[in-house]
Amino acid sequence: MPPAQPAHRAGEPVRDGIPEHGRIPRYYAVKVQLRAVIEELGPGTMLPSERELAERFGVSRVTLRQAVGELVLEGKLQRRHGSGTSIAPPKLSQPLSLSSYTEGMRAQGVRPGRNLITLERLTADAGLAIDLRVEVGAPVIHIERVLLADDERVGLESTYLPEQRYPGLLEVFDPAESLYACLQQQLGVIFAEAEERVETVLATPREALLIGTNPALPMLLLHRISTDQHGNPIERVRSLFRGDRFSFVTHLKPH
Amino acid sequence: MPPAQPAHRAGEPVRDGIPEHGRIPRYYAVKVQLRAVIEELGPGTMLPSERELAERFGVSRVTLRQAVGELVLEGKLQRRHGSGTSIAPPKLSQPLSLSSYTEGMRAQGVRPGRNLITLERLTADAGLAIDLRVEVGAPVIHIERVLLADDERVGLESTYLPEQRYPGLLEVFDPAESLYACLQQQLGVIFAEAEERVETVLATPREALLIGTNPALPMLLLHRISTDQHGNPIERVRSLFRGDRFSFVTHLKPH
Repeated sequence: MPPAQPAHRAGEPVRDGIPEHGRIPRYYAVKVQLRAVIEELGPGTMLPSERELAERFGVSRVTLRQAVGELVLEGKLQRRHGSGTSIAPPKLSQPLSLSSYTEGMRAQGVRPGRNLITLERLTADAGLAIDLRVEVGAPVIHIERVLLADDERVGLESTYLPEQRYPGLLEVFDPAESLYACLQQQLGVIFAEAEERVETVLATPREALLIGTNPALPMLLLHRISTDQHGNPIERVRSLFRGDRFSFVTHLKPH
Repeated sequence: MPPAQPAHRAGEPVRDGIPEHGRIPRYYAVKVQLRAVIEELGPGTMLPSERELAERFGVSRVTLRQAVGELVLEGKLQRRHGSGTSIAPPKLSQPLSLSSYTEGMRAQGVRPGRNLITLERLTADAGLAIDLRVEVGAPVIHIERVLLADDERVGLESTYLPEQRYPGLLEVFDPAESLYACLQQQLGVIFAEAEERVETVLATPREALLIGTNPALPMLLLHRISTDQHGNPIERVRSLFRGDRFSFVTHLKPH
């Protein structure tokens, strides 16, 4: 081993969640115990009642609620309306790839769905004009849809397309189906490349209402600009996914 | 346009943050106004005092604090110890690529740094044995470092390497420098591919303490397994990045 650094504690185990000063917040100790309960019970099972768990761990119901609350935000537990708290299923894996939400969900045996919220014609502002490479004021199609996974609302997707490049789109597009499949199969569009950016954000109250989540829930936000084989922008997309239900996966190779 | 759907409000602008039922939470209205102030002032500027802003917007200081608190969590504002709140710089962009943290930061003109927290020999448990393709009980090197950007603590990286595959590593590795540069230049390791998974999580109290953040701050968590040109695993990595300071970017191409 190299010479010890000041912060070096070779051989000492890494204690998950325990600050160096050794004071473990009580709610966090409960959270660690709850994780063991979750592991043991498995997805879909109901969690024992708040009263029972508070007694078992010897803590107040306030402390228990803090631990349960964090595990709900993290997607380990799920609150069910009027019927307590259950162990959540594993997160869905959405590939960061040129394929669509539809394909990503089907690959995991999950039934994708969409509810149309907004379908409108806009005129391009300065930002859209740059991203879609059109004139300021050019017509833009805006499609906003809630994303469903086995009928559960899991995300919100907002897509902007340059209308002059796809003049027949609104005649053939079914808002309940995959936009990518429509563009590819009906209009012959080829998705050649995309630039994607991933962030974590808090949902706005409107977004939280549409997705049916708590506004405090951390969300994964995906910005995408897709281009065709000629380098022309196809779309600008803003997709918001529930942070407790999704992870993104990617396979990296050298350029 | 296709026939109107029940939820279809063609032509109607999308009102950011405003629920369909039209009741805008007061704190959210303040947040929208604060965003305009932030745009106007620009990065680095101090935000006017709480008292002044509460007066200007005609709201209580409790309401103002809720709006400011969310903007801090989102990385739009930064709290400075004992000196108020300032407009935050833009988020750092970390490429999802085979290159290292070091290279990603340097490409943005940011000085990368690392503080060693843990350097230890472990024996592989069942999970590490599968991920690193070694026997259960085989020696594993564990390196845990706080990641710095221009001396600011921005993340925490935990790397596990199969010691038998890199027996000379600990003799040549400087924990203050890039591990990837060391593996590539001193040991001739070739990073051929990697599988990566991105999630949003809450930091544990220990992690929050090491990174110097609030445990309520949403973090971006990256899991990576890198493999060499023979398909042998090089490392398993768990990198935690401040959600208010980072976004991940990737360029997608067809497989």
